[in-house]
Amino acid sequence: MKNDLLLRAARGEKTERIPVWLMRQAGRILPGYRKLREKVKDFKELVKTPTLACEATLEPVQALDVDAAIIFSDILVVPEAMGLDYEMLESKGPMFEKTIQSKKDIDGLRIGSIENWNYVVEAIKLTKSELNGKVPLIGFAGSPWTIFAYMTEGKGSKTFSIAKRMLYSEPEMAHALLDKITQTTIKYLKDQVNAGAQIVQLFDSWGGILSPESYEEFSLPYIAKICDELNGLVPVIAFPKGAFFSAKEIAKLNCSVIGIDWTVNPSEARTLFGGKSLQGNLDPCVLYAEPSVIRSKTHNMIEQFGTKGYIANLGHGVYPDIPVDNVRHFVECVKQYPVK
Amino acid sequence: MKNDLLLRAARGEKTERIPVWLMRQAGRILPGYRKLREKVKDFKELVKTPTLACEATLEPVQALDVDAAIIFSDILVVPEAMGLDYEMLESKGPMFEKTIQSKKDIDGLRIGSIENWNYVVEAIKLTKSELNGKVPLIGFAGSPWTIFAYMTEGKGSKTFSIAKRMLYSEPEMAHALLDKITQTTIKYLKDQVNAGAQIVQLFDSWGGILSPESYEEFSLPYIAKICDELNGLVPVIAFPKGAFFSAKEIAKLNCSVIGIDWTVNPSEARTLFGGKSLQGNLDPCVLYAEPSVIRSKTHNMIEQFGTKGYIANLGHGVYPDIPVDNVRHFVECVKQYPVK
Repeated sequence: MKNDLLLRAARGEKTERIPVWLMRQAGRILPGYRKLREKVKDFKELVKTPTLACEATLEPVQALDVDAAIIFSDILVVPEAMGLDYEMLESKGPMFEKTIQSKKDIDGLRIGSIENWNYVVEAIKLTKSELNGKVPLIGFAGSPWTIFAYMTEGKGSKTFSIAKRMLYSEPEMAHALLDKITQTTIKYLKDQVNAGAQIVQLFDSWGGILSPESYEEFSLPYIAKICDELNGLVPVIAFPKGAFFSAKEIAKLNCSVIGIDWTVNPSEARTLFGGKSLQGNLDPCVLYAEPSVIRSKTHNMIEQFGTKGYIANLGHGVYPDIPVDNVRHFVECVKQYPVK
Repeated sequence: MKNDLLLRAARGEKTERIPVWLMRQAGRILPGYRKLREKVKDFKELVKTPTLACEATLEPVQALDVDAAIIFSDILVVPEAMGLDYEMLESKGPMFEKTIQSKKDIDGLRIGSIENWNYVVEAIKLTKSELNGKVPLIGFAGSPWTIFAYMTEGKGSKTFSIAKRMLYSEPEMAHALLDKITQTTIKYLKDQVNAGAQIVQLFDSWGGILSPESYEEFSLPYIAKICDELNGLVPVIAFPKGAFFSAKEIAKLNCSVIGIDWTVNPSEARTLFGGKSLQGNLDPCVLYAEPSVIRSKTHNMIEQFGTKGYIANLGHGVYPDIPVDNVRHFVECVKQYPVK
């Protein structure tokens, strides 16, 4: 590895400078990606064609000079691998024709295997070879609860009230589905690691809409199972977006890194998650501001996180309309921060 | 007053049983309201016609037997009173034709006065007289940041990135707009109190998308100003939805009651907000479940909140597709809880 800053920071080691990458760095902020999408209109075609996914993965490494690549893919590879197909509607998000509503629906799902996500495996192998050790390659998956939310709701939602209704009305059924998703996700992430992913991130994008009690029954235990299976192989980054009400329980996860969103104060995060490395957490909207504001907010954030066991990132994915120059400036500001 | 449980609980007094009402109790869950909306398609016509607003306000007092009426209205009365008109699009939400983007736009706004919200004043007077002391009448307004978010974004949004961009790029301009909204809101709430509102609630619906630093600069100080002006007149309920990352600062508000959303553990809320009365916080999705689940979750919630200085409610507005019988069952479960 020419640059293993991310992996060392994930393991809690002191690094000579702070590693930085961005969630959604491979996307609409980049001119190359936008050109690619003009050619390939269908988002899923991009995800399913290893050469194209590889191209999208590599662009930000060149264009933004970040310290990691994250495989260009989608968390909804997992439901599709289980037999639940979806469409990605432009500017609307995912749409499932069929949703999971009954025990019979759950029984009809398979536990996915490598043949169901071979395109991701191939994309990782290709990207790994193209990267040639330049920076580490991150694999990822959604948390079981987040995948459950899409499989039962069928699309994005402000409240995910259909998904949550099942937790309260049919808790056993919910657990059966979560268990099946978890088994699939563990196999999926292991295949990503075998293919070359050197670290994996678990996105719990919708944990924050649960009550602490529901979160600790329906989301966290399944994240914990995945961490237990994976963290011995590669470092795991758990990103429990919006769920910091359960910080005490999250702190017990067998993972190397906790991803922090911008609603958590960095120094409070250090107190909450003592022994872990941390990743985050600049409000993406800071990147709309002028360079001097980006610099002062970024440096202020680092000061609060401290420089050891720390990976700089935004508190969520970068927004597609943020000017790429501002993103570059953010990356530079992190790199320029002096580590003593 | 025949039933002043809500007012006494708001003042932290012990009550012989726990008062209960629901945010959005006057709405689509009720058959009378749905019939009303078949006659009057335009939501704003309903808000602006005192006899109709009164009818919608009174229905849940009869149909659900709750311990308070909340005036049927909308938080966007304030921007309209300031000169920024909006349309309410069915199932899409509010849409502003013009949004606030510049100092000139802000200078063009007026600080609203009674003539701009006289329909609300009249609706409150009429409702107060119809209620005839049966239960207290709640007035309300949005928090200045929440109103700011709509005035700059022009519509609902997942990220409110246009609104937040202004906070980082033009903080002085943002404060100028927030100040103008705050002045208007204080006058508006005082007029509601003069017309007969016996308690007021401030909805900070979008505080939770800010970082703690931004929240404490752009939302909380304006809520504090309103509390300082109002809490001497009537009890104020502050509802900082999703913003409990700033609990320590919220606890300092000069208000009588803190509204709690379902992401906060009730016993933790008691620790965080020592001296205040609390309101909340059942996950609305619990009301999709069967009666026994509603009962056990409701009683468990009350047990944790304790019965003194407590107003039972959901952690957010009731969802329109929740069966009215389940809502009634929730109300009954609260009422049946034994207070020692």
